[in-house]
Amino acid sequence: MMIVMKEGATEEQVDHVVQRIEEVGCSAHLSQGDLLTVIGAIGDRDRVASLGLEGAPGVDHLVPILKPYKLASAQFRKGERSVVEVDGRRVGGDHFGLIAGPCTVEGREQTLDVARTVADAGATMLRGGAYKPRTSPYSFQGLGVEGLRLLAEAKEQTGLPIVTELMDARDIPDVIEVADVIQIGARSMQNYTLLSEAGRTGKAVLLKRGLSSTLDELLMASEYVLKEGNPNVLLCERGIRTFETAYRFTLDLLAVPALRELTHLPVIVDPSHAAGRRDWVMPMSLAAAAAGADGIIVEVHNEPEEAICDGPQALPTEVFADYAEQVRRVAEVAGKQVTAV
Amino acid sequence: MMIVMKEGATEEQVDHVVQRIEEVGCSAHLSQGDLLTVIGAIGDRDRVASLGLEGAPGVDHLVPILKPYKLASAQFRKGERSVVEVDGRRVGGDHFGLIAGPCTVEGREQTLDVARTVADAGATMLRGGAYKPRTSPYSFQGLGVEGLRLLAEAKEQTGLPIVTELMDARDIPDVIEVADVIQIGARSMQNYTLLSEAGRTGKAVLLKRGLSSTLDELLMASEYVLKEGNPNVLLCERGIRTFETAYRFTLDLLAVPALRELTHLPVIVDPSHAAGRRDWVMPMSLAAAAAGADGIIVEVHNEPEEAICDGPQALPTEVFADYAEQVRRVAEVAGKQVTAV
Amino acid sequence: MMIVMKEGATEEQVDHVVQRIEEVGCSAHLSQGDLLTVIGAIGDRDRVASLGLEGAPGVDHLVPILKPYKLASAQFRKGERSVVEVDGRRVGGDHFGLIAGPCTVEGREQTLDVARTVADAGATMLRGGAYKPRTSPYSFQGLGVEGLRLLAEAKEQTGLPIVTELMDARDIPDVIEVADVIQIGARSMQNYTLLSEAGRTGKAVLLKRGLSSTLDELLMASEYVLKEGNPNVLLCERGIRTFETAYRFTLDLLAVPALRELTHLPVIVDPSHAAGRRDWVMPMSLAAAAAGADGIIVEVHNEPEEAICDGPQALPTEVFADYAEQVRRVAEVAGKQVTAV
Amino acid sequence: MMIVMKEGATEEQVDHVVQRIEEVGCSAHLSQGDLLTVIGAIGDRDRVASLGLEGAPGVDHLVPILKPYKLASAQFRKGERSVVEVDGRRVGGDHFGLIAGPCTVEGREQTLDVARTVADAGATMLRGGAYKPRTSPYSFQGLGVEGLRLLAEAKEQTGLPIVTELMDARDIPDVIEVADVIQIGARSMQNYTLLSEAGRTGKAVLLKRGLSSTLDELLMASEYVLKEGNPNVLLCERGIRTFETAYRFTLDLLAVPALRELTHLPVIVDPSHAAGRRDWVMPMSLAAAAAGADGIIVEVHNEPEEAICDGPQALPTEVFADYAEQVRRVAEVAGKQVTAV
Repeated sequence: MMIVMKEGATEEQVDHVVQRIEEVGCSAHLSQGDLLTVIGAIGDRDRVASLGLEGAPGVDHLVPILKPYKLASAQFRKGERSVVEVDGRRVGGDHFGLIAGPCTVEGREQTLDVARTVADAGATMLRGGAYKPRTSPYSFQGLGVEGLRLLAEAKEQTGLPIVTELMDARDIPDVIEVADVIQIGARSMQNYTLLSEAGRTGKAVLLKRGLSSTLDELLMASEYVLKEGNPNVLLCERGIRTFETAYRFTLDLLAVPALRELTHLPVIVDPSHAAGRRDWVMPMSLAAAAAGADGIIVEVHNEPEEAICDGPQALPTEVFADYAEQVRRVAEVAGKQVTAV
Repeated sequence: MMIVMKEGATEEQVDHVVQRIEEVGCSAHLSQGDLLTVIGAIGDRDRVASLGLEGAPGVDHLVPILKPYKLASAQFRKGERSVVEVDGRRVGGDHFGLIAGPCTVEGREQTLDVARTVADAGATMLRGGAYKPRTSPYSFQGLGVEGLRLLAEAKEQTGLPIVTELMDARDIPDVIEVADVIQIGARSMQNYTLLSEAGRTGKAVLLKRGLSSTLDELLMASEYVLKEGNPNVLLCERGIRTFETAYRFTLDLLAVPALRELTHLPVIVDPSHAAGRRDWVMPMSLAAAAAGADGIIVEVHNEPEEAICDGPQALPTEVFADYAEQVRRVAEVAGKQVTAV
Repeated sequence: MMIVMKEGATEEQVDHVVQRIEEVGCSAHLSQGDLLTVIGAIGDRDRVASLGLEGAPGVDHLVPILKPYKLASAQFRKGERSVVEVDGRRVGGDHFGLIAGPCTVEGREQTLDVARTVADAGATMLRGGAYKPRTSPYSFQGLGVEGLRLLAEAKEQTGLPIVTELMDARDIPDVIEVADVIQIGARSMQNYTLLSEAGRTGKAVLLKRGLSSTLDELLMASEYVLKEGNPNVLLCERGIRTFETAYRFTLDLLAVPALRELTHLPVIVDPSHAAGRRDWVMPMSLAAAAAGADGIIVEVHNEPEEAICDGPQALPTEVFADYAEQVRRVAEVAGKQVTAV
Repeated sequence: MMIVMKEGATEEQVDHVVQRIEEVGCSAHLSQGDLLTVIGAIGDRDRVASLGLEGAPGVDHLVPILKPYKLASAQFRKGERSVVEVDGRRVGGDHFGLIAGPCTVEGREQTLDVARTVADAGATMLRGGAYKPRTSPYSFQGLGVEGLRLLAEAKEQTGLPIVTELMDARDIPDVIEVADVIQIGARSMQNYTLLSEAGRTGKAVLLKRGLSSTLDELLMASEYVLKEGNPNVLLCERGIRTFETAYRFTLDLLAVPALRELTHLPVIVDPSHAAGRRDWVMPMSLAAAAAGADGIIVEVHNEPEEAICDGPQALPTEVFADYAEQVRRVAEVAGKQVTAV
């Protein structure tokens, strides 16, 4: 942590800051320019942060030097990239994961039909929501346990590992009976209890970036999972909120190379929610693959016009094989392979 | 809902949309201009929304006409404003609520000292966090049940109703033993299960706007509480996320008059979290009162330099009486009174 | 334009709005639901807009139905895509334009060296700034006319058409002696006089999106050029401003498919300014090509460490041929070819 | 400038950075922690910035320590606040400026009627636009020189100094015949040539913050005026662009106390453009005064329903006296007086 003193800060004020740093067992390092003084606080970052020096007399502002996350940092694995493996399916490193399925599990036929389609086209895992966070209390809230049961059946039929969202820690026993990967949605990214408890299940966790969360906050959220001894975290960029109203969210693909520098964790992209329209899903999927993403999570439906939720952004099952093929081609240019088992 | 067709949409495409609207028991109303056709769908909005017409052939875009919230709308109370009353303390209408206290309950002396100070200066309620959402898993996470006990003691000594945050539905039994107002933090604004369960307690709910939530989303979140038959909701603007880095959040005071038009619910402002610095808390508190807010929720500490959390933004107890006096003067110009019992 | 009346608007208020619409020669079309009335105003959009009905009694809000731009709209060319051709080089349609060169013209050797490199690697045009918009008045402001002269020499040697920025209409005579494409920078996107005068030169115009401009605003800005009878406009996405601080700007690649639907104009992407770092320029260039962009404008330098301006984001000349090759491969997957003459 | 090296940067890389800093005549100061090294570069900031060290091997990121503006900084006047005086009217320090008038000069009667109304109610200056930046080329673009002539007449009749916008440096001779204060609009905030030339006129300059400009950028823009030897700059917050769509812009009132700390220049607020509706102008004006603004610039019209531009946000003349009185009361609570001559 660097503490930048105001121009005109007195010697007394500088000494006071130095003293407070030393009181918590850290050392202070002065750097005096013509105009102002900068104090480097060396030692445990959390202790220095806890001093609340932003408010101290003579202090202009603080500059954190070390990243606040540890286990998620690229340095933690000395630059080696993590690969998340589930039932022999790998995402990360050279392995591009194609996770596909319906937004919401709506019924048996829909779930099994979509599952077979994506399995046939070489998808890595099956996604599908049994519990749905809905902005309106008057909207369909998901099939719950019945939805989980249908996912289990789809898994049995296709062999695809299941990715499904967890919204409430009390649903963990039900969810982990079926889920191979627990999805934490954008709206829950800072539900820290949920993160910790998901981490403790030992299941892989797919963590979506909050609508207005910075990359640092996303990595801090992943740290809640990692600190439970669970190294299997997939980060997911799914669009952020900006002033632009031509689309639902602004897909932030610079997050892909930036996260790949900051962390060893695999980074995947959800092109469906940002685009909000199926004809923009393909170009954004290709763009994600080209940007170096470790995978994509995409929505597919057998009858998009009848979908209960987010039908307009779902790819119809009949185009999925072609879609998967094109994604595969671009991923290969970017040096990756869509994982077969 | 208005469905705007693309220029060049065929008659067949228009008919198809009309037919789908009528299939769900709504009526369609055509408006044909030189360039394009607009179809008004009249009837149950949720049914029309569920059709997912955004993706239908020939459709350009949809324009929702009715607000998605019902119980929270100003029309629901025919323009009459709600007043939330807790133990004889009122917030809303002509009553300006001054809710003050420490960010976090850290210990007995701190809690009681701050409580007495704000009570003496005429505060309406005491705030204090026992459960704290922390970006870092390595930060202090709150005293929990022990913190609630200290708040109970502060209430006993001062008579002030207690406002405290609920983060996990499993803590409800403990929290409602002490809390008069359950605070739902910005990061939990879209934790819909939590909202519903907080609503069912019958306690008043103070609902903070998410960092990047629109006013419509805030009102939809309040709808989750209201639909449980609980009319006592206080909305709270606490700063949104923008590109500006000179402060932690951008306090969006236009939300005050805008919400006062959209909803009957009282609207309060948290100036502490956006400012992040105590010397900016006073001007933003006065600005909130001048903008017509129904109250303020502000952080106060007896020893800000020693605070475990957010010390730099806490008002020191010794300035609080003067602060309260100035807020009161501006609130009066705006036509409100700081409520005494 | 649809005028949505407030719930409870009186018949008189509805009649008043209808009357005002009819007074300007448009026709009004009523659509009455159970809760509220929507009035469709059919006829000249600018006349209806000029009524300022947002403020009229009983009016809740207005919903524009037609896009405010005409010449830029996809409908204007009935879905056919424009191709901008300069000296036999084409951008748009199936032609992918690779525009490359130094951020700033700094000297003869630098300019010629970079020009030769990008020409050899098959670039479509040469970019280079003689006039530079600088946030600080204490920064280097460009070589001006001397810079233009160096660009002319580079053009002579390589045959590459020149893209260079215009900041002040008084520089037009100097600029058009050299420029084949006039660049209007992000900070000038709403300098409407400059747009009109650039349009009148008859030179092609490369128009960058403002840092916080919507796609509609970008298209309205292009309309200022188009209405001068100049159809040769290239739109350029170059990153928008968001809350994220890990990069300089957030490259908004969803703008590519969205603009391709809204307008017939070619859409190119500047990956350099958003990334701000050369190692992120490659992935974002590939992503732009994969998203369906009609071209890329990228910064290249022979000695990036010595660059006066934006060195850290410049690709070194020695990697450019390889870079161009990879961009070409992805553009081909997306169905385009890097234009040779 | 602090240069933060990557974890694992080699001694060689550190030495290389130190050497480059010393080559430009600055000195380097090493601060070595357990994990990484921070290098403080002491000396001329522009020289260090020009090194482009962001891209150098082993460098993680740079942290600027000194603010990039000099003449605008609070330190430049050692904490004393500037007062801009025009024809005996003062804005800044204890003087609250109330600048009012029509958005656009539309005609003689309108201009003189509004001018007399605001003069009678004690306004400090008259605002009115002769040149208008319009998003659409099909909208009314202002009366130009004829509009300036009407402003001159209004000044003659009322004695009020004139504030009017300059969009093109070629209009300076016409504008300075009439204007006492040259307004630079939000869209021109980074038109640096315009800023410099406006500065050289010697007239006071009212500089509006760009829609997505940071406070630092606003202050850098003011530096372009100040460096011409012109100290009379008024900064103006007028709303920034965010994701919220309930209003046109988000009025950022935290900018008021923040700018008052960063700079000695007076800070005023434009509540009209952000609100976009006249009923929200009053609460935001009071909020601005309460936040400590040095003044307000507000739109007034004698027949808002007939206004060519922005009628819905204009205060009608008949309410202006009452409006001014309420603003005055809140400004007084905040320690200021609306300046009479």
